[in-house]
Amino acid sequence: MTRPSGRAPDALRHVVLEPGVARHAEGSCRIRMGNTEVLCTASVESRVPPFLRGSGQGWVTAEYGMLPRATHTRGDREAARGKQSGRTQEIQRLIGRSLRAVTDLKAMGEMSITLDCDVLTADGGTRCASITGAWVALHLAFRHCLKMNVIAHMPLKDQVAGVSCGLWQGEPVLDLDYDEDSKAQADANFVLTGNGGLVEVQGTAEGEPFSEAQLMSLLKLARHGTDQLFRQQRAAVGIG
Amino acid sequence: MTRPSGRAPDALRHVVLEPGVARHAEGSCRIRMGNTEVLCTASVESRVPPFLRGSGQGWVTAEYGMLPRATHTRGDREAARGKQSGRTQEIQRLIGRSLRAVTDLKAMGEMSITLDCDVLTADGGTRCASITGAWVALHLAFRHCLKMNVIAHMPLKDQVAGVSCGLWQGEPVLDLDYDEDSKAQADANFVLTGNGGLVEVQGTAEGEPFSEAQLMSLLKLARHGTDQLFRQQRAAVGIG
Amino acid sequence: MTRPSGRAPDALRHVVLEPGVARHAEGSCRIRMGNTEVLCTASVESRVPPFLRGSGQGWVTAEYGMLPRATHTRGDREAARGKQSGRTQEIQRLIGRSLRAVTDLKAMGEMSITLDCDVLTADGGTRCASITGAWVALHLAFRHCLKMNVIAHMPLKDQVAGVSCGLWQGEPVLDLDYDEDSKAQADANFVLTGNGGLVEVQGTAEGEPFSEAQLMSLLKLARHGTDQLFRQQRAAVGIG
Amino acid sequence: MTRPSGRAPDALRHVVLEPGVARHAEGSCRIRMGNTEVLCTASVESRVPPFLRGSGQGWVTAEYGMLPRATHTRGDREAARGKQSGRTQEIQRLIGRSLRAVTDLKAMGEMSITLDCDVLTADGGTRCASITGAWVALHLAFRHCLKMNVIAHMPLKDQVAGVSCGLWQGEPVLDLDYDEDSKAQADANFVLTGNGGLVEVQGTAEGEPFSEAQLMSLLKLARHGTDQLFRQQRAAVGIG
Amino acid sequence: MTRPSGRAPDALRHVVLEPGVARHAEGSCRIRMGNTEVLCTASVESRVPPFLRGSGQGWVTAEYGMLPRATHTRGDREAARGKQSGRTQEIQRLIGRSLRAVTDLKAMGEMSITLDCDVLTADGGTRCASITGAWVALHLAFRHCLKMNVIAHMPLKDQVAGVSCGLWQGEPVLDLDYDEDSKAQADANFVLTGNGGLVEVQGTAEGEPFSEAQLMSLLKLARHGTDQLFRQQRAAVGIG
Amino acid sequence: MTRPSGRAPDALRHVVLEPGVARHAEGSCRIRMGNTEVLCTASVESRVPPFLRGSGQGWVTAEYGMLPRATHTRGDREAARGKQSGRTQEIQRLIGRSLRAVTDLKAMGEMSITLDCDVLTADGGTRCASITGAWVALHLAFRHCLKMNVIAHMPLKDQVAGVSCGLWQGEPVLDLDYDEDSKAQADANFVLTGNGGLVEVQGTAEGEPFSEAQLMSLLKLARHGTDQLFRQQRAAVGIG
Repeated sequence: MTRPSGRAPDALRHVVLEPGVARHAEGSCRIRMGNTEVLCTASVESRVPPFLRGSGQGWVTAEYGMLPRATHTRGDREAARGKQSGRTQEIQRLIGRSLRAVTDLKAMGEMSITLDCDVLTADGGTRCASITGAWVALHLAFRHCLKMNVIAHMPLKDQVAGVSCGLWQGEPVLDLDYDEDSKAQADANFVLTGNGGLVEVQGTAEGEPFSEAQLMSLLKLARHGTDQLFRQQRAAVGIG
Repeated sequence: MTRPSGRAPDALRHVVLEPGVARHAEGSCRIRMGNTEVLCTASVESRVPPFLRGSGQGWVTAEYGMLPRATHTRGDREAARGKQSGRTQEIQRLIGRSLRAVTDLKAMGEMSITLDCDVLTADGGTRCASITGAWVALHLAFRHCLKMNVIAHMPLKDQVAGVSCGLWQGEPVLDLDYDEDSKAQADANFVLTGNGGLVEVQGTAEGEPFSEAQLMSLLKLARHGTDQLFRQQRAAVGIG
Repeated sequence: MTRPSGRAPDALRHVVLEPGVARHAEGSCRIRMGNTEVLCTASVESRVPPFLRGSGQGWVTAEYGMLPRATHTRGDREAARGKQSGRTQEIQRLIGRSLRAVTDLKAMGEMSITLDCDVLTADGGTRCASITGAWVALHLAFRHCLKMNVIAHMPLKDQVAGVSCGLWQGEPVLDLDYDEDSKAQADANFVLTGNGGLVEVQGTAEGEPFSEAQLMSLLKLARHGTDQLFRQQRAAVGIG
Repeated sequence: MTRPSGRAPDALRHVVLEPGVARHAEGSCRIRMGNTEVLCTASVESRVPPFLRGSGQGWVTAEYGMLPRATHTRGDREAARGKQSGRTQEIQRLIGRSLRAVTDLKAMGEMSITLDCDVLTADGGTRCASITGAWVALHLAFRHCLKMNVIAHMPLKDQVAGVSCGLWQGEPVLDLDYDEDSKAQADANFVLTGNGGLVEVQGTAEGEPFSEAQLMSLLKLARHGTDQLFRQQRAAVGIG
Repeated sequence: MTRPSGRAPDALRHVVLEPGVARHAEGSCRIRMGNTEVLCTASVESRVPPFLRGSGQGWVTAEYGMLPRATHTRGDREAARGKQSGRTQEIQRLIGRSLRAVTDLKAMGEMSITLDCDVLTADGGTRCASITGAWVALHLAFRHCLKMNVIAHMPLKDQVAGVSCGLWQGEPVLDLDYDEDSKAQADANFVLTGNGGLVEVQGTAEGEPFSEAQLMSLLKLARHGTDQLFRQQRAAVGIG
Repeated sequence: MTRPSGRAPDALRHVVLEPGVARHAEGSCRIRMGNTEVLCTASVESRVPPFLRGSGQGWVTAEYGMLPRATHTRGDREAARGKQSGRTQEIQRLIGRSLRAVTDLKAMGEMSITLDCDVLTADGGTRCASITGAWVALHLAFRHCLKMNVIAHMPLKDQVAGVSCGLWQGEPVLDLDYDEDSKAQADANFVLTGNGGLVEVQGTAEGEPFSEAQLMSLLKLARHGTDQLFRQQRAAVGIG
């Protein structure tokens, strides 16, 4: 079997993490996975949503967007259309949940961090790339807060990264690009932690249903991919 | 371990499927799972979305809503607020995908069926109950089309049903009610087919990440639950 | 003359009031008038709209909705379209005014009750059925407040119910169903109180204008119909 | 009894109808009733709404608006808020229905006329003044179409005018201004035709319900008022 | 050269300013420039936008609208469409900036004045006419505040007026009407102060770019026009 | 006088134009002017807006956006708020007009090009940078169309570029950064063509009005700046 991209079944695309690219943001990271390119910024605000006021606890949330011509054919600008699509909302909820899963919200105190993940070029896997890049931006924003003495300890408990996998001609392959994704029989997004825990699993059959064994083999590939992403995240923020 | 509801870990709530309850709809089913109650209707229209015009292929889609006082405290009416929440959109996309996975869209010809899933009372598991009830409504709508000679063969290839599972005090339990869901350490929604295939897997850690073994044990419970749901679906539409 | 439904000119459809059907609401009632079915819930909140803050006075308001397939052909979901139609807003304003007309707002103290009237099946007369059913839900919600010692006296001063009448082939007939309504030469909605007073009169000529004498004969029929509705309301809440 | 305005119970305010004031419109009329001032324009378009295409029939509709400072305190501009209030929609539906009731839509052929009724100054009775003025604008627009040979006969079958009445200290009074309206125990809007028929009756109790006899006495006053308005309409368009 | 309107190149249209026309507003002015007619009202409110709270400073802002049939063919009602066009927003921002440029916001204290400029008939130059008329309305509103002892000194530091100019067949002409505007090779709006200063310059080439010399000749014409407008403003408010 | 940035009064910031950066777009250019960074893409579509259908003529339009954290403090995401601000709409109208001024729309035939200008980092002058960069993207998109034989001749008649100028302590300075812009007494945006013509002039007094002589001196600076920008545009697209 040769997958459309010619990569080995367990090969990630070329991954580049550029920390600190956004001049004004407290934390930022541009992530490229092959031709997919996402700009992630972390913005610190001193207020929390109403349901947390007085709780002593912080909040981490995310917004996701795609430049109109990030894709092969120009898409409508969501600001001009007057609303975000269901897909956009689903993705930004996923990113927010994934990052909260590795954050000690109590340790933040009452402040909020918003991760903006804006896709400059899309070639598949934008939601997973957003999570991986947003973790770097969030880490840097917390470090900024530590330096400013706004918080006493790093609230991040672990790393988190996302990667997609899919079944192509019945075989599991790692990190689908757009072309592969549109031909896959099933695709799954896995969000894993540095310690090997699962934070999110989202598997969808595109045509035929998939089996339990196939789900397991996709998960195994995902672990392989996120291990590499965790190493690159640590290098990007200069730890471990 | 005793779970909050007092049910056995592998026990579904009391399930009732009432087919044909909506006077005007081509197919309908009211489903109760314990105190959760959802009205599912299937509406047949002779046109398809623009991207399918001239393709000879049909479409199945879903919309989801919740009556303002389906919940403990009254929620905003989405029509009055002027937009659907991200949660609503995420759920209706899931329901649509799940039903399309067991439908032969080509066999439908160029017509659309919209499944409306409206939650009359919510007590956890509304998205899964919607899928299970919508399958019955869809089956009845197709049977109506067969009787009207609009289609020649039943386009449904298989059954599909959804059920939630979760980890409670580290133990896997089936079919969470609202109270259990809010205390669970992780919850997962499984959409399975009658033949045992997986159509959708959505697992989310609420606090601590979960392990691969735990994911497998949740899936095993889900199979147990959907087997019962498949029997009740067949009884509701009078097959098998 | 035989009217389309075959009913006597002064005959209501079969009316069923089911109090207490909504598990979470402080008060509720499902009303069926023939094939029209409306679920009415009353939700108590401890805050009032801005214009009443500090006034010591309460507020009663209503929202109205129709499930997309409550009708012969599926209607757009207002939440998906992003706005409520003029018809929806007109009806919910009418329901709110009607109920406030029999409520001692001062006796409520500063709290609000929202009546949600959601049409499950529509076959004409949904706004009138909503008013009749909402009175039962409101009564039960106030009784709940009395039991909770939130209020000292029942703030309802009287009963209120609505019924439609119309001219069919020049003859006045009571309680139009959808088919009759669409053929009527004029239709009128009357909202009357238990003491015989008029709260709302809305008469509309569909084709030819109608005369004063005809308006009077419609009103006479409406009294006949609401007398029966008042008896059923009292039975539903267990008074007099 | 002296009513707040000092007028006799059966006295209209000073009424002025100025036909043809809008330079660009096919028909127009500025109506003043005391301090209430509404600009009504009729715009002819050669297309009809989708539900009438191919029917050979025309359509008459209305839109209503109020300048932000037409009232004592500035109101929100509905265009800036992004939606029309329920009140606005209710009023424009009433105006449209009232004018259609005296129009032979078949005689129009497939064209539409939109009546825009914009309140420049509000002092009560704006919906009734809109109907009365819009009839003049509509008549002039039809006459324009006759002159252009777009239609062969005048499609207006009758005149139509609206007037409000109310109960003040238990006594019926005609044509309420804002101050009187806010103190009235009940108010009713009557839309009557030149031949004495009723097109719309909308009576609302503000505090105590009203009686059948009171409704009749209000209607009698309304006839008295519209007789005068019909004379002024005929003078404005130069007939009879 | 004869321009389409037949006016001399440096001739304004007939200008009429009617102060105090709006019964409820603290200040108002109806301005006619030829067939263009705009109603300007000034509404005083005792609160300021959030960014000025506690600053001791006031605010002047503007909203602009056009009646649907102010133009040759009926335009959509922005309230019905649910949003203001880009043109509307651009114009109301211009009007607000122009008036703030001659207002001592500190001298106002913490209060706001909103200028509503509603175009009753459009024949070119509506934004400039709005500025010229709004200054009169604002002056009268401030005078009202002085009389009420809300402010101690007149916060207006100077007059401000707007006028359009354009190139027609290469020649500069003053105060374009709609017909001239649509044929002009370039048009420019100038907002000038009584002391001769420039507050806003907006020049746009419609076809060929224009030259620096042409820009200068347009500005010279604008001075000529605003001198006349300043005289009429002073007459309207009874000063100098 | 030393201006805040320390640059000479007539010095542009460091300008970098990177053509062809967007993988999917027919034309693209990333422009940096100091710390301001805008991504401009040109998207070709084969249909034109309704008002041009059948005219044989093309259209060029623009949309503008700013990433939420392009600025010092995070701004609302316009897609999430559900509408574009007045500022956004004003800017995208300006960009569109500027590019149309140098395009032979007839030579395009019936096709549309949309320029998306998305600000990645904002430090003043984003609308002018957008115009300058968009010209490069448009040129490349037309060249792509030439290569595809969709058009026979280059429809661009001239170059166009924008630059801001302002008065700082009474002295004219070129190309304001954010800090300078917020302290300027007046600022003006000039859009000039390669042949020296004026396409757009937008001058605004922030505090005191400015004089005619000052406007002229600002324009002189602008010419100086755009001459440099024109050279860089030609280099970027490899002409002259």
